[in-house]
Amino acid sequence: MAIIVQKYGGTSVGSVERIEHVAGRVAKTVAQGHQVVVVVSAMGKTTDQLVKLASEISDKPSKREMDMLLTTGEQITISLLAMALQKRGLGATSYTGWQAGIVTEDSHSNARILDIQTEKIQSQLSLGNVVIVAGFQGATHDGEITTLGRGGSDTTAVALAAALKADRCDIYTDVTGVYTTDPRFISGARKLHSISYDEMLEMANLGAGVLHPRAVEFAKNYQVKLMVASSMVEEVGTLIEEEVSMEQNLIVRGIAFENDVTKITVSGLPNQIETLSNVFSLLSEHGINVDIIIQNQTAEEKTSISFSTSRSSLEEALEVLDNHKEQLQFTELTHEGDLAKVSIIGSGMVSNPGVAAQMFKILAENEILIKMVSTSEIKVSALVEEEIMVPAVEALHRAFQLEEQEVTV
Amino acid sequence: MAIIVQKYGGTSVGSVERIEHVAGRVAKTVAQGHQVVVVVSAMGKTTDQLVKLASEISDKPSKREMDMLLTTGEQITISLLAMALQKRGLGATSYTGWQAGIVTEDSHSNARILDIQTEKIQSQLSLGNVVIVAGFQGATHDGEITTLGRGGSDTTAVALAAALKADRCDIYTDVTGVYTTDPRFISGARKLHSISYDEMLEMANLGAGVLHPRAVEFAKNYQVKLMVASSMVEEVGTLIEEEVSMEQNLIVRGIAFENDVTKITVSGLPNQIETLSNVFSLLSEHGINVDIIIQNQTAEEKTSISFSTSRSSLEEALEVLDNHKEQLQFTELTHEGDLAKVSIIGSGMVSNPGVAAQMFKILAENEILIKMVSTSEIKVSALVEEEIMVPAVEALHRAFQLEEQEVTV
Repeated sequence: MAIIVQKYGGTSVGSVERIEHVAGRVAKTVAQGHQVVVVVSAMGKTTDQLVKLASEISDKPSKREMDMLLTTGEQITISLLAMALQKRGLGATSYTGWQAGIVTEDSHSNARILDIQTEKIQSQLSLGNVVIVAGFQGATHDGEITTLGRGGSDTTAVALAAALKADRCDIYTDVTGVYTTDPRFISGARKLHSISYDEMLEMANLGAGVLHPRAVEFAKNYQVKLMVASSMVEEVGTLIEEEVSMEQNLIVRGIAFENDVTKITVSGLPNQIETLSNVFSLLSEHGINVDIIIQNQTAEEKTSISFSTSRSSLEEALEVLDNHKEQLQFTELTHEGDLAKVSIIGSGMVSNPGVAAQMFKILAENEILIKMVSTSEIKVSALVEEEIMVPAVEALHRAFQLEEQEVTV
Repeated sequence: MAIIVQKYGGTSVGSVERIEHVAGRVAKTVAQGHQVVVVVSAMGKTTDQLVKLASEISDKPSKREMDMLLTTGEQITISLLAMALQKRGLGATSYTGWQAGIVTEDSHSNARILDIQTEKIQSQLSLGNVVIVAGFQGATHDGEITTLGRGGSDTTAVALAAALKADRCDIYTDVTGVYTTDPRFISGARKLHSISYDEMLEMANLGAGVLHPRAVEFAKNYQVKLMVASSMVEEVGTLIEEEVSMEQNLIVRGIAFENDVTKITVSGLPNQIETLSNVFSLLSEHGINVDIIIQNQTAEEKTSISFSTSRSSLEEALEVLDNHKEQLQFTELTHEGDLAKVSIIGSGMVSNPGVAAQMFKILAENEILIKMVSTSEIKVSALVEEEIMVPAVEALHRAFQLEEQEVTV
């Protein structure tokens, strides 16, 4: 008998009808002879409504009280889902985060999980009951209610799967799996049968919003086998696990992309050892996130630094730099908007040094100018003009043969 | 420095505006130099909305899961009130029932409080913080979330006041205090300055819905000084305490009344020792609540029993009795509807045996026929025709001089 952890997000439990539907899926898994632990988020717009209530009271509510407020959202869902399962004749017990033994650090709104005391859950499972756990929340050793921040419910599910040594952790969401690229924009996008943790991490970090990177990292650290699938459609999803041996021949597994990227260049900087640190410490102090950074180190007296940032940060970044022109000793500040970042991802790249070159060649053949490049062991990102983002992705998707049918294990 | 427990009901915290108003009142009490613990109910219609959600899922939701669901209501209010107080610059910490150390018996939907572990609350108070506790809820020793059933938030407040040895427990509600009779119907009704626990108990049990009898009993057992006042109007309320010495000359302190009363008479019953028990065990097994019972015990072979019950129970009571006619061996079943119960209450009655007689005389002088009578140490109840209920109350209110200005202590 295997333990399966299933996680259903806010849209999947957004109404009484959807909760009934989830109950049906859980019942099916139980009927297959599994012990099931279900993690749920707050119903659809509940969290937004609670945030609105708080904002009507205070424009700066304390994090502790926000945690007290928001954790009611998941508690409502767990009890309703338990009722729906009981109506189907199944034993079901709901637990808030603290009841489920999820112990977090003493920090509000973004706490990390320290430990999960699984005795209660395990005793309920051994009684044949489904256990339903409120996602996104836990409590400190002192009984202070905490929330886990962004990606919290995914993280709850993965952490529970690790602590319970579950056979699998299924993340049910509003997409049917992980795709080679975003199917909303690229018609040839194909669902992946499986993908490695590292590849998924890059995909997640590059804006493929299926799974939160934090949950993927957790899964990687504890070797939790993840499955991403749709809560609406009965369809095999994408498996995320360590080794994807049968597909090693596929060097590039997916293509991520995002628009609203801008590039800033700071020229005439002193060519000194602390220049890079000075510029980015300053930006960091002002909360400006920077993505790709390029410095072309030469033997000359002056140097220049380019970096990319989101469109929403552009104005503040320019202002902050301009205000510190004397301190940083640069001569010129230029910027370029309307850019996009296109990234190819695949763990096979490590052993195939020519992949980046291949990407540049494909883009060049399609007359797409690369503004900036960044590489890691398993991805290559290129900044291009925003208006040719989709054609660029299409060209790469085609050239790397991602449209072709995948080998199934 | 005194500890004051304040309780605000659902209407008093029914909107963001009303929560702000409550925060203002709490701040005022703090400014007077008191340590304040606030108990709140769920906002206005929240509980109804949650019950509706559950009913859409299941027509028989388990009590455990209903407790999980409903306790979110108060948790929302406590966090919002804490935010509102923090905005005013006050230190404030909200606690759910289990966080506040409220330990209950292992029973859902109607649990009794076993113990309150006050360490957390006390340490917050000594830091100068207002503590806000979710009413109506607690948890078992095993961490199962429970609710306290009807009158639960009042009971939470009184129990906290007892455990913290508070100087006073203020119950803020939508009326300005306890009245000699219901001011919505009787124009001469006057607010009482103070009333004893026993008198309040009788008033509460007789439909003066200001305070739940359970909370009054708790207050009596632990000698908690209660104050009932309005959350909306700045006005001195009614104090409920053991001795009301200055007012002992007032024999009758209040008049309660309720309509929708019916009377059933079972005639021709065998005059045996077990007859009374047989009839009322049967009714009790069918969940029929009976109020006043009269049996005129004579030496005859046959006897009859009369009792009063609510209009809503009449039909079922008649049916149950009729179905057991042979078993109970009675000959006739009659009933009378459209009745009302009028009760005079006052702890001074104990030492004034003539009070009941005085009541009958007043009613007789007003040509009001008494259908049935019941007495206790501190009250006399009489059943009368429903249509003359208000005139009967008015006559008694006048004759017992309840309209006159009360002596203030």
